[in-house]
Amino acid sequence: MNDAKADGRDETQLIGVDWGTTHLRAYRLGEDGAVLAARSSSEGMGSLRPEAFAPTLAKLLGDWWRAGIDIVCCGMVGARQGWMEAPYCPAPAGVRDLALAAVSTGGERPCRIIPGVCVSEQGHLIDVMRGEEVKAIGAAHDGLILSPGTHAKWIEVEGGRIARFRTYMTGELYGLLANHSVLRHSVGGPAQASAAFLDGVGRALAGEALTASLFSIRVASLDDRQTPQEGSARLSGLLIGAEIAAARQDYGPRPITLVGVPEMTDLYTAALKLAGFEAVEALDAQAATTRGLWRVWKEMQ
Amino acid sequence: MNDAKADGRDETQLIGVDWGTTHLRAYRLGEDGAVLAARSSSEGMGSLRPEAFAPTLAKLLGDWWRAGIDIVCCGMVGARQGWMEAPYCPAPAGVRDLALAAVSTGGERPCRIIPGVCVSEQGHLIDVMRGEEVKAIGAAHDGLILSPGTHAKWIEVEGGRIARFRTYMTGELYGLLANHSVLRHSVGGPAQASAAFLDGVGRALAGEALTASLFSIRVASLDDRQTPQEGSARLSGLLIGAEIAAARQDYGPRPITLVGVPEMTDLYTAALKLAGFEAVEALDAQAATTRGLWRVWKEMQ
Repeated sequence: MNDAKADGRDETQLIGVDWGTTHLRAYRLGEDGAVLAARSSSEGMGSLRPEAFAPTLAKLLGDWWRAGIDIVCCGMVGARQGWMEAPYCPAPAGVRDLALAAVSTGGERPCRIIPGVCVSEQGHLIDVMRGEEVKAIGAAHDGLILSPGTHAKWIEVEGGRIARFRTYMTGELYGLLANHSVLRHSVGGPAQASAAFLDGVGRALAGEALTASLFSIRVASLDDRQTPQEGSARLSGLLIGAEIAAARQDYGPRPITLVGVPEMTDLYTAALKLAGFEAVEALDAQAATTRGLWRVWKEMQ
Repeated sequence: MNDAKADGRDETQLIGVDWGTTHLRAYRLGEDGAVLAARSSSEGMGSLRPEAFAPTLAKLLGDWWRAGIDIVCCGMVGARQGWMEAPYCPAPAGVRDLALAAVSTGGERPCRIIPGVCVSEQGHLIDVMRGEEVKAIGAAHDGLILSPGTHAKWIEVEGGRIARFRTYMTGELYGLLANHSVLRHSVGGPAQASAAFLDGVGRALAGEALTASLFSIRVASLDDRQTPQEGSARLSGLLIGAEIAAARQDYGPRPITLVGVPEMTDLYTAALKLAGFEAVEALDAQAATTRGLWRVWKEMQ
């Protein structure tokens, strides 16, 4: 647990909570959603039983909590295996839809949990997300929004509402391959937007199949013509390139807003430009999340 | 360790050993390479230090070993991290090339280790294999040979020599995704050549990108419209389909010989037929390996 900013209790209007599978982050938000302070812990939803959520949050909030301050959560905390299920809100979904569909945990310190969003076709689920919808609402403009990560989401926002989206398992594949596959001998350190990264992106954009190109990372390291850093970058490039190559077929090059941590948006910006996406803007994920929590909460009033 | 057949020591002409990363299999081979007996253990090359290979093999062979009987090994045992490095034999490589390039371990019970094969272009390694070259030599005919597995190999044999090949990380991706990704909640049991498998193959052949289609397996299970067995089959279909879709661009539909265990050749046969490969023949991997070991040994005489 850490307290990122100095105390400012009196100005607090909302406690916003971003509770994912592997992280828990709480923010004290003041006038117009300004972040007054932040705390985080590694007690993600994935490691908690249902009865553990309330005490875990109470412990993190500590002296922040007092009667009359609303608490609004988003993320996997609202999954079926989380604190309390907040059933997916069907797309198209905007700030008002999310506010209306939020569920309350009840109890001594009730929290409202913002639901995820789903896309259905002919009565079947096509795709789901939890957490990224708040980032998209926080970005607060229409167009194509891309949230990189374990499960990257390409989100189309129309008329202020999430119209449709698609999930790519890019980050999860990277973690599995870099840490648990034969490629673990050929990679080292975080991927950077280097020449090796762009080489990987370029090969994927040229249509090289992932399942074939991945092994070339192993072969290049046997040949001593690729450092571990280059291996990481090339692996990342092949995976991000494959994601962008597929998405480009759906969307064509158009303005795109990246919402993520700088290490990720740097990589994606370089890859998107190589793929012909000229207008790429990057937003900080934390800023988009707190903005989105604030906007949904305002709509609850 | 197990002894698959009754004793027949006197007829033994060769002890053939298939020593991979996770397995060790020894065969007593008689007249014309007939398998007289087989023993195996899980002491694969990946779990052994260099000095452990000789005693591990001696323990497995036990009463099989006697002076004057040759021992020939293939597989990852000849890797740099194995018993003794048998440097890759450059393609094109046939039975004579492999026999000439084999290395001897020396010691009390010397073994000859058959090298793997590599493909280079302009002085750079392009692809490598260890073990599959013996299966391809064992298949003993020209044409396209496909060895499914952790690292599937598509091998072109011309004039009795391995001319070129390409590696697809299909089996390793399946293991990682089925056991360690979010999809582990959506799969169960071995993949079978069911409707869900063919659905996955068809989607991959139609060009759906792997990184996007994988998450649909998770979504379908949230919707309760996919059993874990169907999840396994669909995941396998998407991955095998992606491999075949990529390889089809290189080779076009042509006669193909599968060399693998029946569970794998059944899946690949169904997928290849869907992809337009009309003439698909399946060979048992163990039979191809022992045949290949025999052929290379004969060439050493």
